[in-house]
Amino acid sequence: MSDDKAGASPAAAYLAIDWGTTNRRVYVMAADGSVLATARDDRGIKSVEAGCWADELAGIRARFGDLPAIAAGMVGSTRGWREIPYVIAPAGVTELATGIGRIPEERFFIVPGVAYDTPDHADVMRGEEVQAVGACLSGLAPHDALFCQPGTHNKWIGLKDARITSVTTALTGELFALLRDHSILAEMMTGPVEDGPAFRAGIADAAGGDLLSRLFGVRASVLLGRRAREDGAAYTSGLLIGADVAAREVAGRLVHILSDPNLGPLYAVAIEAFGGTSTAIDGQAAFVAGIHHIWSMIDD
Amino acid sequence: MSDDKAGASPAAAYLAIDWGTTNRRVYVMAADGSVLATARDDRGIKSVEAGCWADELAGIRARFGDLPAIAAGMVGSTRGWREIPYVIAPAGVTELATGIGRIPEERFFIVPGVAYDTPDHADVMRGEEVQAVGACLSGLAPHDALFCQPGTHNKWIGLKDARITSVTTALTGELFALLRDHSILAEMMTGPVEDGPAFRAGIADAAGGDLLSRLFGVRASVLLGRRAREDGAAYTSGLLIGADVAAREVAGRLVHILSDPNLGPLYAVAIEAFGGTSTAIDGQAAFVAGIHHIWSMIDD
Repeated sequence: MSDDKAGASPAAAYLAIDWGTTNRRVYVMAADGSVLATARDDRGIKSVEAGCWADELAGIRARFGDLPAIAAGMVGSTRGWREIPYVIAPAGVTELATGIGRIPEERFFIVPGVAYDTPDHADVMRGEEVQAVGACLSGLAPHDALFCQPGTHNKWIGLKDARITSVTTALTGELFALLRDHSILAEMMTGPVEDGPAFRAGIADAAGGDLLSRLFGVRASVLLGRRAREDGAAYTSGLLIGADVAAREVAGRLVHILSDPNLGPLYAVAIEAFGGTSTAIDGQAAFVAGIHHIWSMIDD
Repeated sequence: MSDDKAGASPAAAYLAIDWGTTNRRVYVMAADGSVLATARDDRGIKSVEAGCWADELAGIRARFGDLPAIAAGMVGSTRGWREIPYVIAPAGVTELATGIGRIPEERFFIVPGVAYDTPDHADVMRGEEVQAVGACLSGLAPHDALFCQPGTHNKWIGLKDARITSVTTALTGELFALLRDHSILAEMMTGPVEDGPAFRAGIADAAGGDLLSRLFGVRASVLLGRRAREDGAAYTSGLLIGADVAAREVAGRLVHILSDPNLGPLYAVAIEAFGGTSTAIDGQAAFVAGIHHIWSMIDD
């Protein structure tokens, strides 16, 4: 794929946009679902001021071609262009297409997010549903699969028959950032976050289930000379990712990790530590497959 | 007790200072261990600049009397006047007196903190040890007791034969503040923190052990209209205090809560929810009893 040159390609049929909070990726799509060009930038929804969405879209079209567009992600949230109601799990490509949000005068479509709403657990997502469904429908993963999408808000998505049946979001990444940036542990968290003995010690300690005291233990262990200060960040990462994975009952299961070059390998280590196996899925390929399925099912 | 008037009392023998990070309380003590006067201010150690400790003490003496002084708390940490090495648990009043830090030219003594250091768990405290030991020795609690001191860093202190045998610190209070002040949950945490259905729902959800996803659930539940936004802070408090208490195996046990007018009652509710009972202990009385025992055992 090359950047930014196929907007005028004769085969270009529509634009697909993965529009998150911080970043955005635009794909120029052919009618058969192949990608003619793609480019990523930092124009996530928090970079777009209220009232400026049509201008923003005009800028995308000036660059990639004057085509109808379909977007998924936080662009459909209260903080995005227009709030599109969640579809309720279980939900597959049919529900996502039926629940599509439309801004006809702009030839713009927004994929709804998915909510999981049972008496025991409430959860929501916007954007990840396209990747998970797309991975199943394109053969990147089986129709019954468990996905993990590492990130600030780590997502666990269960599918049966290529339909989303469960959603669990963990505050793992955000909590790590809060502790590193604002907590009493900050001075112990300046080292690298990487796989190694400290990260694995964190995973092992997470198995005990007492996260709140293990976090203070980051400080106590350094003060008592039991752990090197430069290992604090890796240990804390192991503790948090370990606590996240420990709660998912991955033993004996295969987890499909939607690609993240930094966090994906760390989650793979933790999944293995708790008796599971994992495989990496190309998140862009999954998104393209999912968004094209949805596009093909809506009347534009 | 009255403020600030007994510095010149003929019976005054020494000053006892509970000197924490943010606040400080000074007691004017008689030789028999009774309190002649006490006052609290916000001159915690973070208010004292390096090199100004002798001046700070001179100010205390100008106000309360020119007496020898003994202090406990963060004043003995790396960030305090002088770092006093921790004594290692098990430790009682004998070890605390033996490990006393001395600044003879200032007629100033600093109680050491206590470290708990086993292969499975490392922990430290400075200040709380005086209250726990004092409560046992003065009859406020039995010699075998479990204490909880709610706070930013919540302490659980186990004693046998009036000696500290275990220390567990949980980051409960600090994590609550981080989430309220800096996280994506902040907008859902502007309501009151108080006992009620939302707080108790948080405790109940904490029993499931999946804190990281329950925290994101604070947001999802509000977005899905399942919980009122103004209940978010109370629910999150219940979740965190519940997770803390759930890890302590309080079922069938009596927990002695060192008094905290805000957090103490909330911990009492959580302890009961997990099958324990609790009783409130006067933290000032416990401190006075403990510090006087230590004072009586050192050569000044």
